[in-house]
Amino acid sequence: MSGTMMHQPLTINSLIDHAARYHGATEVVSVETEGGVARSTWGEVAANARKLASALDKMGVADGARVATIAWNNRRHLEAYFGIAGSGRVTHTINPRLFPEQITYIVNHAEDKVLMFDATFLPLVAAVRNHFDTVEHFVMMGPRDDKAAATIPGLLFYDDWIETGDADHVWGDLDETLPASLCYTSGTTGNPKGVQYTHRSTVLHSLAGNQPDGMGISAMDTVMPVVPMFHVNAWGVPYIAAMNGSKLVLPGPNLDGESLARLIDAEEVTMSLGVPTIWMGLLDGLKKTGATAKSMKRTVVGGSALPPSMIPEFRDTYGVELVHAWGMTETSPLGTLNQLLQKHTHLSDDEQAEIRLGQGRPPWGVELRIVDDNGDALPHDGETQGELHIRGHWIVDSYFKRDSGTLTEDGWFDTGDIATIDADGYMIIRDRSKDIIKSGGEWISTVELENIAISHPEIANAAAIAARHKKWTERPVVVAVKAPEAEVSEEDVIKYYDGHIASWQIPDRVIFVDSLPLGATGKVLKAKLREEFGGVLEDAE
Amino acid sequence: MSGTMMHQPLTINSLIDHAARYHGATEVVSVETEGGVARSTWGEVAANARKLASALDKMGVADGARVATIAWNNRRHLEAYFGIAGSGRVTHTINPRLFPEQITYIVNHAEDKVLMFDATFLPLVAAVRNHFDTVEHFVMMGPRDDKAAATIPGLLFYDDWIETGDADHVWGDLDETLPASLCYTSGTTGNPKGVQYTHRSTVLHSLAGNQPDGMGISAMDTVMPVVPMFHVNAWGVPYIAAMNGSKLVLPGPNLDGESLARLIDAEEVTMSLGVPTIWMGLLDGLKKTGATAKSMKRTVVGGSALPPSMIPEFRDTYGVELVHAWGMTETSPLGTLNQLLQKHTHLSDDEQAEIRLGQGRPPWGVELRIVDDNGDALPHDGETQGELHIRGHWIVDSYFKRDSGTLTEDGWFDTGDIATIDADGYMIIRDRSKDIIKSGGEWISTVELENIAISHPEIANAAAIAARHKKWTERPVVVAVKAPEAEVSEEDVIKYYDGHIASWQIPDRVIFVDSLPLGATGKVLKAKLREEFGGVLEDAE
Repeated sequence: MSGTMMHQPLTINSLIDHAARYHGATEVVSVETEGGVARSTWGEVAANARKLASALDKMGVADGARVATIAWNNRRHLEAYFGIAGSGRVTHTINPRLFPEQITYIVNHAEDKVLMFDATFLPLVAAVRNHFDTVEHFVMMGPRDDKAAATIPGLLFYDDWIETGDADHVWGDLDETLPASLCYTSGTTGNPKGVQYTHRSTVLHSLAGNQPDGMGISAMDTVMPVVPMFHVNAWGVPYIAAMNGSKLVLPGPNLDGESLARLIDAEEVTMSLGVPTIWMGLLDGLKKTGATAKSMKRTVVGGSALPPSMIPEFRDTYGVELVHAWGMTETSPLGTLNQLLQKHTHLSDDEQAEIRLGQGRPPWGVELRIVDDNGDALPHDGETQGELHIRGHWIVDSYFKRDSGTLTEDGWFDTGDIATIDADGYMIIRDRSKDIIKSGGEWISTVELENIAISHPEIANAAAIAARHKKWTERPVVVAVKAPEAEVSEEDVIKYYDGHIASWQIPDRVIFVDSLPLGATGKVLKAKLREEFGGVLEDAE
Repeated sequence: MSGTMMHQPLTINSLIDHAARYHGATEVVSVETEGGVARSTWGEVAANARKLASALDKMGVADGARVATIAWNNRRHLEAYFGIAGSGRVTHTINPRLFPEQITYIVNHAEDKVLMFDATFLPLVAAVRNHFDTVEHFVMMGPRDDKAAATIPGLLFYDDWIETGDADHVWGDLDETLPASLCYTSGTTGNPKGVQYTHRSTVLHSLAGNQPDGMGISAMDTVMPVVPMFHVNAWGVPYIAAMNGSKLVLPGPNLDGESLARLIDAEEVTMSLGVPTIWMGLLDGLKKTGATAKSMKRTVVGGSALPPSMIPEFRDTYGVELVHAWGMTETSPLGTLNQLLQKHTHLSDDEQAEIRLGQGRPPWGVELRIVDDNGDALPHDGETQGELHIRGHWIVDSYFKRDSGTLTEDGWFDTGDIATIDADGYMIIRDRSKDIIKSGGEWISTVELENIAISHPEIANAAAIAARHKKWTERPVVVAVKAPEAEVSEEDVIKYYDGHIASWQIPDRVIFVDSLPLGATGKVLKAKLREEFGGVLEDAE
């Protein structure tokens, strides 16, 4: 056909090829599971990815087969990302924090043929491997280790194994709609569900998610993804870093604040990404080590809501800008990112921080809406709350091996969140739809109740739940953990809500516990709390 | 099929939809052809684009038909970009600086059905319209004008005409590989050739070209494309600005330095794009008007080589960073962009400026190579010169209505340039392959000879050409224009080369002329100079 442009598929191997071709000498620094720091380059990572692809070929692993990893953020895991997907197979990243039964379910459901794992997880793998129905090869990601070899018969060692492959291996032609990676959600109920990303969705997520108002990662950056590579592809950072030739710092297994603080200063990290808990730890680690984080410019925070005090602390003490982002396994994950607009530049730091506490606005490529219980669209006025739906180039269409039921009838993915959206697209998650408290026909956000409780100096952590109520159907109850040696009373906390929230939203009870039940990804298990405390208001009028 | 991600086409209407949805109130400022400044918004531009699409439907213009524009950078032209392509037709932008015969050729070759033009070009259109074989409707881009109406029978006026359309018009479903826009090269020999961009190539060019190390345009920016919208889609800026929700300032017909300087200060422009000549004029305009360009952060310079003195002048006097870029009509146009790497940060300003004079490195999505006369790949060592080839997602595959002959046998586009590429991908254009001087088997870059001549304070402009030579086959001759009132001699200039270049590369002659012959896009017509001066060394030994 005449009058057209070249057509090339959007593939993951084009990313690593670009990095090798134009950023071959740029460093990839990796904290190793066995200790120490390994210094590599994009050129070496690309060469090893090709060897790995070739080794898989020689092993007879079929096109499209799933190759699983249970690993930290390190150089070998990075090579696996590109070598597995680049050769037309599917990188299946497994969260080691799941229960062994869930891991077994996932491995069998994905029909993994090869399982690659870090030394840390040898005991885990050794304990459950007999329940794996499809795994034919186990590869420990490191040098040969005789003790490990004795634990699993036929165990392969990454460093030897990839040498059976060829560094001049040529990537085959891949259709851009082929699957590239697979990640299971850690649903709190039911079996985990798999989201299978395609080459195209991954490349478009990288391109659109890394616009200047998105991640904004450049070749001038030294990027440290603390978010695990087993959590939604570390939010796409390995791909974005390759696409833009940035130096990568992979923190391995040491995610405590002190280790991270030292690594930031040693490698002059300019930007990082992770969940709020990690950054709480980092603040502590910076104080303890005396590290300055002078090189650090910004940090993307996601996974759960950003605690309000964190923005000024990072800004004023360390000159680090916190960028709040929101997404899910089903959304690759970038759904929104909180960057300001021109019209916000005249606002004070505190007013800007207020805006930045929300989840932010969608980049080109995704679209948000909120709907009521009937599925009718609600206004984007920043006030009206509704079920948050999303659609776009990197949003799940159907879960792995499930033909239907993933989307609404008109083709949107229902996030299960309750949110508001304003005229500029700034979205704020108000609650999980299954958590929100429906009191006398009005909605009360548990997130808001929790934020207020946590802002009390004597409260360490809190979860708000709906308790059954004769008159109002549901009323709020807060389950709280006191700060060490605090002597705060239930009445104190209830009084503290006064002036922070409308009076009808103030919780009926505050119940103190020693700790909150947490799931595999560190989220509070509210279903468990509702089970235990849902009946405490049954006798109330 | 289960286990996949949503599939949406990559289309231009998704860009304007995003701008309208999330940046609807962001300003689009337009200097009007009829005088004055019009203030609009992305929301209004999107609504008018839909009206225009609907008006084309009602007019019966077929899917895929070409709708031509001859217009300045202004709001109506922007609406046309999105309305025409968004509705499945092809925006054919015509360069008004071409000769009337070339315009006629182009309009007929493209089979344009509608021709939209600014009032400026009414005389041009009126003069040649009888030679247009296919144009059924003429639309003047402005309000009704009775005098104009009398000039062309049946003439439509944009502001009235789009009101026949519907602002609630719904974009149809478009395949991403459909054509979206068409631009003819202004080849110095032969007929112009058409490059037809697809929706997909345009969206990928926007996404990849606007990575942080690319154009880097954000919603915080106020962008002023001085590069005309009839030159390769104004380098993609209208699309990138819509995708990222930036404020847009369209300078209309007034491209003199003083008008631009005033506009930059009035609208607080933060970044701009254009050819070196424009920035030479701007420097002058800044001095004359006393404008400070305080808001301006960076400027993308392309179209021809960046004069060395320009970088420090913009940097030191105005705090503006010049970003050198390279591309062609056939490359959408972004081929390379000159942004530094981490390893350059320790260099001095002057050392950095030295690197930044080159054309820069390719973003993800395009790939460069240099080859010798046999088509064999040459090393990327920054020294070896070869024919520059390019391939990628937004590079021409075949010219419009030409089935073959556009690419090399192995699928690359030959740029016709001679270049070097270093290990990091930094590319430097050394010459046009038809201009380079082949002296005794060695190559002499005419660009280098010209840069040296122009750096002489008494030389205003210069072009180097190959003159035929009995012994050396070709030897360099420089054709130069003296600065006003300069009294420099041929011997002075030849002596000036000493120490700036290897002695065998020093030109044999320097010939003074009153002016250099320029083509429609302002490039020196070297073929004409060779015709006139190619024989001056025929008697030399």
